[in-house]
Amino acid sequence: MLMNTTRLFAGMKRERLDAIVATMPENVTYASGFWAMSQWIRRGPQAYVLTPAEGCGEPVVIASTGLIDLAASADVWVKDISRFGSFTIDRTPNVLLDVHDTRIEELLGQGDDGDAVGALIKAIKSRGLQNARIGVDEIGILPQYWDKLGEALPGATFVRAADIFRYARAIKTHEEVKRLRKSAQIADMSIRAALDVARDGATEMDLARAFHSKTIDEGGLPVLGCIGAGTRSAMTNVQPSERKLRRGDVIRFDVGGRYRHYRADIARNGVLGEPTEKLAQYHRAICVGLDRAIEMIKPGVRVADVFAATVEAVRREGIPHYQRSHVGHGIGLDGYDSPNIAPSSSEVFEEGMVICVETPYYEMGFAGLQVEDTLVVTRDGVESFMLSGTELQVL
Amino acid sequence: MLMNTTRLFAGMKRERLDAIVATMPENVTYASGFWAMSQWIRRGPQAYVLTPAEGCGEPVVIASTGLIDLAASADVWVKDISRFGSFTIDRTPNVLLDVHDTRIEELLGQGDDGDAVGALIKAIKSRGLQNARIGVDEIGILPQYWDKLGEALPGATFVRAADIFRYARAIKTHEEVKRLRKSAQIADMSIRAALDVARDGATEMDLARAFHSKTIDEGGLPVLGCIGAGTRSAMTNVQPSERKLRRGDVIRFDVGGRYRHYRADIARNGVLGEPTEKLAQYHRAICVGLDRAIEMIKPGVRVADVFAATVEAVRREGIPHYQRSHVGHGIGLDGYDSPNIAPSSSEVFEEGMVICVETPYYEMGFAGLQVEDTLVVTRDGVESFMLSGTELQVL
Repeated sequence: MLMNTTRLFAGMKRERLDAIVATMPENVTYASGFWAMSQWIRRGPQAYVLTPAEGCGEPVVIASTGLIDLAASADVWVKDISRFGSFTIDRTPNVLLDVHDTRIEELLGQGDDGDAVGALIKAIKSRGLQNARIGVDEIGILPQYWDKLGEALPGATFVRAADIFRYARAIKTHEEVKRLRKSAQIADMSIRAALDVARDGATEMDLARAFHSKTIDEGGLPVLGCIGAGTRSAMTNVQPSERKLRRGDVIRFDVGGRYRHYRADIARNGVLGEPTEKLAQYHRAICVGLDRAIEMIKPGVRVADVFAATVEAVRREGIPHYQRSHVGHGIGLDGYDSPNIAPSSSEVFEEGMVICVETPYYEMGFAGLQVEDTLVVTRDGVESFMLSGTELQVL
Repeated sequence: MLMNTTRLFAGMKRERLDAIVATMPENVTYASGFWAMSQWIRRGPQAYVLTPAEGCGEPVVIASTGLIDLAASADVWVKDISRFGSFTIDRTPNVLLDVHDTRIEELLGQGDDGDAVGALIKAIKSRGLQNARIGVDEIGILPQYWDKLGEALPGATFVRAADIFRYARAIKTHEEVKRLRKSAQIADMSIRAALDVARDGATEMDLARAFHSKTIDEGGLPVLGCIGAGTRSAMTNVQPSERKLRRGDVIRFDVGGRYRHYRADIARNGVLGEPTEKLAQYHRAICVGLDRAIEMIKPGVRVADVFAATVEAVRREGIPHYQRSHVGHGIGLDGYDSPNIAPSSSEVFEEGMVICVETPYYEMGFAGLQVEDTLVVTRDGVESFMLSGTELQVL
């Protein structure tokens, strides 16, 4: 199971919720294992998971009939599926279907619950929750459907609950850690593959193609591909262009795809030829900052303290004017999970958090430098997912 | 410019809007050229474009400072940028910056408008629209921000306006047609690349890797990759597995990535060895249905009539029980643009629509068959984007 049920229930209890509804793709997958494809690749398509509070009934997935084969997948651990909308799937008479097709046939046989919000209302009623306090993840539900919930269930109280999913998702389950480790390692290997084609005359696009192709070879899918060279590396979200690499160019990678829906986000730098003194000093400074963060992180340590110490280390080591709004963040199904390593954070690190720690530095007219590692917080420290070191790759 | 300004203004006029606000990533890019990366790859990050009605003032992009390099891109035709949130970007003193970096510096110099909704409220006021009727695309804005708009601007009327963007996006501009053609052709070439590795013992994943790698080689990015073989091809959204191909297997592709943000969605079939009679007949039937649709489509023809004639043609040609809820849809920045080729449609085809026409057939225990072409509606018919024919590829 992907979901940290204990933590979700704790978050629900704190907000006195009798049930919670996942509506954005990340939360739907998280709460059920259901990968509602159209919802992931578009905006607007609706899929939900209704999870009653502990001991208050069974969860249910609300899926469009057009996605019924995905809802019938063995990856989906929620047993109750409500489907809506008509969609024709035939079957050969007198042929034995396999387990998956048999499940699809069973779900098709259930009948159609109208539209997404109609199916959700029906599910709420069938669980006796019509007068309950229900949290609804406000990010994925269409506003007109939110209105309909209130109209159809005037006795119920609906509150925005995306933050409760964020709270639950912060502490990863075993399966999530496994996928996140693999996702980070695919990104790491893909940077290596891109560096292997980095030479005088190669373009940023050549590097991006090598990067993404390696990600695909390893079973991932491309998402984030900020790859820039020379002064272009200083653009925060640099998108690869046809610019050709020249001697002396810094290359900055801020990259990561998905592996089984879980995101990667790591960063490394290379340089074509020997680095200038400034470059070597600045890069060393951001590495020392990163090391300082990693050395400090363990359960109970204040997130804000790690921020302060990290920035301070970068300043002391060689970038005296270093300024950042954050030096890392959680990662999971969403590229930015909780916590955010920022000065305003009141959180502490906890065992099971998977964290991207980063010390980017952007200087227009010079270069962008960035190292970013991904790690899991263990009982007494961290375990890094990285295969490569942070050192500047001299090519 | 990507946006069909004439049509957006017409849609706004019909709804008596003084201004319209894009909030979902597709509409933000559409209305300004601004590719707000974090909004595209995550749910929640906010970016907007406020477009006043014709003659009522200049549009403005609302961008997080962390995305300022993308807002400063030459692809962005909206000149007025309001930025929110702090983000540090340094600059080397006494170095001449290039045009793009100079633009970034200029935008950074403007000062910070607080948060996304604060910046939007300020932009509305600065255009004298505080008592106006304003359409807001309801898909991308956070509900709490929608509430804040109403609180901060009690004299204004806010109405949901995602449908007006859908209406505008239905008729493509020249630049959109160019990108959509290329996107479809990349998908077509990528199917060819996948068929080239299809042989006894190859896995669905092998085909998927070949498919996506070709997409990347051609400058696209993977999105949709439903690739299944044998009876698995009957699963509507089949995700490639380690199942090995065997003689007699049908392979179904329902696939397409993005090229410069524009989607592809096409479908083809292959078979390992000679097809059975049933397979040949059924596949011919869906091809004839597709041909019937393509032959009918031209400006002024009713969408519902094309649906009826297409289904009828498939039935007559060899699948007498053929049932579909739709046989195609528009495509653009969103994978499903208007119109939807369904029996309930009251629309007619118009010049400049880019359409995916499809006749899928799913039979559990047998196979999934699907042909889907992409084309643009011209003055007197259609121009297909496809490089390959629809015939069953015998391998």
